[in-house]
Amino acid sequence: MTPPIIGILGGGQLGRMLALAGIPLGFRFRFFDPSPDACAQDVGALTVGSWSDCDALRQFARGCDAITFEFENVPTASLDAIESIARVQPPRIALATTSDRIHEKQFFQRCGLAVQPFADVQTAADLALAVATVGTPGVLKTRNLGYDGKGQRVIRDARLASEAWSALGSTPCIYEAFVPFDREVSVVAVRSKVHGTVQFDAYPLGENVHRDGILHTTVVPARIDAALVSAARAHARVIADELDYIGVFAIEFFVADGVLIANEMAPRVHNSGHWTMDGAVTSQFENHIRAICGLPLGSCAARGAWNAMLNIVGRVPTLDDALTNSESKLHMYGKAARAGRKTGHINLHASSESELRAALTRAEGV
Amino acid sequence: MTPPIIGILGGGQLGRMLALAGIPLGFRFRFFDPSPDACAQDVGALTVGSWSDCDALRQFARGCDAITFEFENVPTASLDAIESIARVQPPRIALATTSDRIHEKQFFQRCGLAVQPFADVQTAADLALAVATVGTPGVLKTRNLGYDGKGQRVIRDARLASEAWSALGSTPCIYEAFVPFDREVSVVAVRSKVHGTVQFDAYPLGENVHRDGILHTTVVPARIDAALVSAARAHARVIADELDYIGVFAIEFFVADGVLIANEMAPRVHNSGHWTMDGAVTSQFENHIRAICGLPLGSCAARGAWNAMLNIVGRVPTLDDALTNSESKLHMYGKAARAGRKTGHINLHASSESELRAALTRAEGV
Repeated sequence: MTPPIIGILGGGQLGRMLALAGIPLGFRFRFFDPSPDACAQDVGALTVGSWSDCDALRQFARGCDAITFEFENVPTASLDAIESIARVQPPRIALATTSDRIHEKQFFQRCGLAVQPFADVQTAADLALAVATVGTPGVLKTRNLGYDGKGQRVIRDARLASEAWSALGSTPCIYEAFVPFDREVSVVAVRSKVHGTVQFDAYPLGENVHRDGILHTTVVPARIDAALVSAARAHARVIADELDYIGVFAIEFFVADGVLIANEMAPRVHNSGHWTMDGAVTSQFENHIRAICGLPLGSCAARGAWNAMLNIVGRVPTLDDALTNSESKLHMYGKAARAGRKTGHINLHASSESELRAALTRAEGV
Repeated sequence: MTPPIIGILGGGQLGRMLALAGIPLGFRFRFFDPSPDACAQDVGALTVGSWSDCDALRQFARGCDAITFEFENVPTASLDAIESIARVQPPRIALATTSDRIHEKQFFQRCGLAVQPFADVQTAADLALAVATVGTPGVLKTRNLGYDGKGQRVIRDARLASEAWSALGSTPCIYEAFVPFDREVSVVAVRSKVHGTVQFDAYPLGENVHRDGILHTTVVPARIDAALVSAARAHARVIADELDYIGVFAIEFFVADGVLIANEMAPRVHNSGHWTMDGAVTSQFENHIRAICGLPLGSCAARGAWNAMLNIVGRVPTLDDALTNSESKLHMYGKAARAGRKTGHINLHASSESELRAALTRAEGV
């Protein structure tokens, strides 16, 4: 028996966790990544190659029964090469839309989501105008290729705008008003087509706390009104249908004065959904695999009352320390420690919020 | 960074699930198996070799930080070869004790566990005497190398004893009285030593139903008195301490007239503990890895009120069918269908027994 093979563009922790979830369904995995150290190689064959090497990508794609990505900045020409051989899901339109922050915001607006004031910045003069119009404080971000707070500068004083512009490389940017938010929440949702019939589901909303631009904790459920939860789910549904999306995705929102403001969308499994590995009936990773293979979705319901995820960043704790709490679930990525690098996460569950907060505090001390 | 490597003797589904549980802790896995088709190769490097090839085993053991087994009939000479290079856990004494059904029963007796009447059968004459003493019906089993009902014959009529003896190859056997049991239950337990301090825990008891000598379902918790649950856990503790055991093990009991009768022990992760993958805080696979690495144990507590495991035997269902129930958890082993072969299992959970039984019935129909 030859098991069906799923190819993943990118061999980082998301690919690794997709494979760990998909192997029990009977799939085999292979990964394409520029780095020979890509940590997903523990769970599938790794092809090392450049994103611009269309021959290597074509060869990688041959023999794959399905292809997906965990790294969304794959060049268009490379996608062309792959798609001539095998179907890639989520759809390209989702990549094209979310890889450009201006397009993403405009797409949110077309779908009826509120966004913070923003301006397209092509030149230093554009930026000066944007700062004058949108106001300060604001955030200047490169239009493409940003993650974990990289490619961003906060502008608190209009006189320092040109400095920020230079620091980001005088490249096309978006300037966004800084939103004085009460909370950051995200909805992780999944859409599949099973013999032509759409299935859609969303996980309970998570409440996110960032540190230094990197996700620090997600606590589920988010402490917001039920009406906002329904609204976030409805927004996710509209966006997924609009893109004819297949797979898991996440939308991050600010909650400000009781209103949801869409910040950004990730067309893939997302860090704020890592709690689902231990806290939901079906993890985001398994549901993504199911979706890209046209299989029925598993339940997105939470197991237990309260769940949380704590990222491990910039260090690799000893297992003795990391496993001290017998209730917590450790997920290491097999990556060496490096400043600002996510090396793993810990999932926690509890029957009350206070118990969960106490467990989080203990876990942070490890 | 080179992750620590765990070597597993045997590359079947138990090895595969050990690796799926251990990779998130940051370990890498390698497997030794006589079959080039061993299904664990999806999650680690496979060395194909014979159990009697001590050179190959030595080479396999080199570079492993810890070694364990999922196949307990490794020849003594082979274990010698490996142990000259790396520590093997669980300890050999556990293998030696459980790989011989007579030694196993005598060990149970020494530890204060009740066993059914049995007799050592070396010759046809021994068997005739055993049948006369122990009575019929009874079960004749080869002393070594039996599993899933293989190497067994029920003797209902003393006149057919010699036929059974021939059918099993006139090899050393045990003859056991047939126990008219009310239920079959098993305790899955784990023992670790963390910096010299013993940790021990046991999962809630499972109630097992066999079909054609192969485990069909496990339902948790077993429907027996709390006193019997405590007794089973206490027995497991005594046995583990007696063997200075490290790792996960299972003891199967018959419950007859309110008494626990020890049937057999598996010195490894066990099929009746597969429900823990989705139904316990820490799975038996993860706890086995923790134990053999001297790490603190994870909680063995159940998540949710009722859990069940249903084996998939002799067939590979389509994923469309197997994933119909959005609440169930599918675990396929990547093995081709063959009569009597376990190819996967389904874990189910529910808030009431009746709900669980209904889900089991639906799952059996897939």
